[in-house]
Amino acid sequence: MLSERLQQQVTFLMEIDKVKQVFRRSFLTDKSRNENDAEHSWHLAVYAILLAEYSKHDNLDLLKVLRMILIHDLVEIDAGDTFAYDVKGYEDKAEREEKAAKRIFGLLPNDQGEEFYQLWTEFEEMQTIEAKYAASLDRLQPLLQNYFTQGASWQEHNITSAMVLERNKHIRDGSEELWSLVEYLVEESVKNGYLIRS
Amino acid sequence: MLSERLQQQVTFLMEIDKVKQVFRRSFLTDKSRNENDAEHSWHLAVYAILLAEYSKHDNLDLLKVLRMILIHDLVEIDAGDTFAYDVKGYEDKAEREEKAAKRIFGLLPNDQGEEFYQLWTEFEEMQTIEAKYAASLDRLQPLLQNYFTQGASWQEHNITSAMVLERNKHIRDGSEELWSLVEYLVEESVKNGYLIRS
Repeated sequence: MLSERLQQQVTFLMEIDKVKQVFRRSFLTDKSRNENDAEHSWHLAVYAILLAEYSKHDNLDLLKVLRMILIHDLVEIDAGDTFAYDVKGYEDKAEREEKAAKRIFGLLPNDQGEEFYQLWTEFEEMQTIEAKYAASLDRLQPLLQNYFTQGASWQEHNITSAMVLERNKHIRDGSEELWSLVEYLVEESVKNGYLIRS
Repeated sequence: MLSERLQQQVTFLMEIDKVKQVFRRSFLTDKSRNENDAEHSWHLAVYAILLAEYSKHDNLDLLKVLRMILIHDLVEIDAGDTFAYDVKGYEDKAEREEKAAKRIFGLLPNDQGEEFYQLWTEFEEMQTIEAKYAASLDRLQPLLQNYFTQGASWQEHNITSAMVLERNKHIRDGSEELWSLVEYLVEESVKNGYLIRS
């Protein structure tokens, strides 16, 4: 027989398999299909390791960043992916996600459920240096997917350069270098016709 | 202009997008399709966080475990996924993967390329406590996917209980509790007809 604790952990690990079926607006670089939240979270975690040198803070807790990143989109199993430029979708996003967090993290043993809920809240609030860095990457990754697919998702949704800069301005709170990268990519995207200038 | 270093990092981050298209034998829990290496790596990383209490060693470096897990399958971009029970595929697996590691990690700035290559080698050699724990999870995750899909991939390839126990015996080096979980799941799988007893 398995302990109740291990059973709860296994139940949670099987439940979160569903995030592999939550599809986002951004495309794979070969443009064959949209990417899903599991793939996005994995990619983001590698970004976090590779680009840590650009974080504004030398004493960044990278393990905490990874913990946040790996679980930050689990709420979308219930709440769905809210497109970055969907104003209406953002109206009740917080409420939908809060409810989802309670249910999904509630599957875990209490101590771990509480720990994951706190990590997710910290990520959402974007106040700590780890949350700011993680949030920067969460914006940078789809931007790069867009750039390297010649703006496939931007064009599908009539996104303009001003919208991209506004949406991604928080990247600057996480990293000056990564913000320069964003400015460079937006400028190149306009030049190459991937993005409408506005 | 971007620095050469940042250009190399971006090139690498775009190259590894391909791992989202490397499909494995195991299925998603809803059986709708096989899972890919990016999804598997993400799932594994959450396993690592959640099940760390079962590692044999109290002084486990979880950050190192996550670094290993997140990059361990990148070599499959070139070398492809080798099915766990494919004897012939294993003959030249090491050689194919070594070549892939050189090319893929070679895209990075030298210091990071070397660091990632060392992490990948450490994972493959299964000697350190972190590598043993990571390797245990790398075996446990597909086993759970199999169990919760009523043995879909086992049945497709005529896998028996003895093969599963032999293939997964290394899990015991990483964790006694997780090995008990394996024994329990294999026994239940035989009882339920997901797995042929042998």
